[in-house]
Amino acid sequence: YGAPPPAANDPMWASFTAIAGQDGEVDAEELQRCLTQSGFTGSYAPFSLDTCRIMIAMLDRDFTGKMGFSEFKELFTALNGWKQNFMMFDQDRSGTVEPHEMNQALNTMGYRVSPQSLNAIIKRYNKGGRIYFDDYVACCVKLRTLTENFRRRDTMQQGAVTFQYDDFILCTMSI
Amino acid sequence: YGAPPPAANDPMWASFTAIAGQDGEVDAEELQRCLTQSGFTGSYAPFSLDTCRIMIAMLDRDFTGKMGFSEFKELFTALNGWKQNFMMFDQDRSGTVEPHEMNQALNTMGYRVSPQSLNAIIKRYNKGGRIYFDDYVACCVKLRTLTENFRRRDTMQQGAVTFQYDDFILCTMSI
Ligand SMILES: [Ca+2]
Ligand SMILES: [Ca+2]
Ligand SMILES: [Ca+2]
Repeated sequence: YGAPPPAANDPMWASFTAIAGQDGEVDAEELQRCLTQSGFTGSYAPFSLDTCRIMIAMLDRDFTGKMGFSEFKELFTALNGWKQNFMMFDQDRSGTVEPHEMNQALNTMGYRVSPQSLNAIIKRYNKGGRIYFDDYVACCVKLRTLTENFRRRDTMQQGAVTFQYDDFILCTMSI
Repeated sequence: YGAPPPAANDPMWASFTAIAGQDGEVDAEELQRCLTQSGFTGSYAPFSLDTCRIMIAMLDRDFTGKMGFSEFKELFTALNGWKQNFMMFDQDRSGTVEPHEMNQALNTMGYRVSPQSLNAIIKRYNKGGRIYFDDYVACCVKLRTLTENFRRRDTMQQGAVTFQYDDFILCTMSI
């Protein structure tokens, strides 16, 4: 005892408590409001509620559907990285990255995927042939979570995992 | 030769061509408009564009991002089934199914999942503790596609599949 509460000196603590409200945890609606009002999305369109839900699912390892303070900080670290990455490719500030740039964008984040998978990703996340920030982040959230889920099971680092059906569904339906 | 074009006598052909427009295929925006204007969603809220995108992805086995006539009919068969199923559980016509009813709803459609997976699914697809029709269908689209992808690889029907990383990403990021 005698130690200060862990978050007391953290500059993000005040904003977290302001957003989280009574229950001390952040849900998807609270997160959406926060990311819009804080100016995080800037000139880009606000995040959809759906993208906010999978952001929470990404870090919600105990499946409560909400985020505590440490997850909140982890999310901001990830979001800042993806935003920087997106802006690097959206040099004309159109708010979109073009499909032919996606391979390089994914490589920059450390992902290596086959042309077939890349094509499937682009088909899933483009709107009218362009990839908007909201969809880009949704793509990153899913790719990170699925890759983490895979790696956690690939204990021998062989690049292959045997899934039971139910575990496959758990890994893929939660995000 | 001499045979009529395959779709000429099909009652859905006229509506398909009216929706598909010039290119003879249906994309997500066209599908959303069609499902709203045809009255399919009825008193429920229109499908989100995101749900329409994964409906197309479910059937788009060649990854063009669009749907031809046979896929269009296959989609309507699936949608009608899910709507009937949803209405069976939404007996008070509130437009929502409650989390405690989801296990039975999934069982009715032939899915068996563990309590942990069920919980993850409910966390992902509820809004304010209830499951709306749009999210219900999104859940069904994903569960059907992931289960199909899994089964197609489980050739010995052992309930277990070994995935290479890239194949895992292809199966899960396209939907
Ligand atoms: Ca809260
Ligand atoms: Ca651009
Ligand atoms: Ca109801």
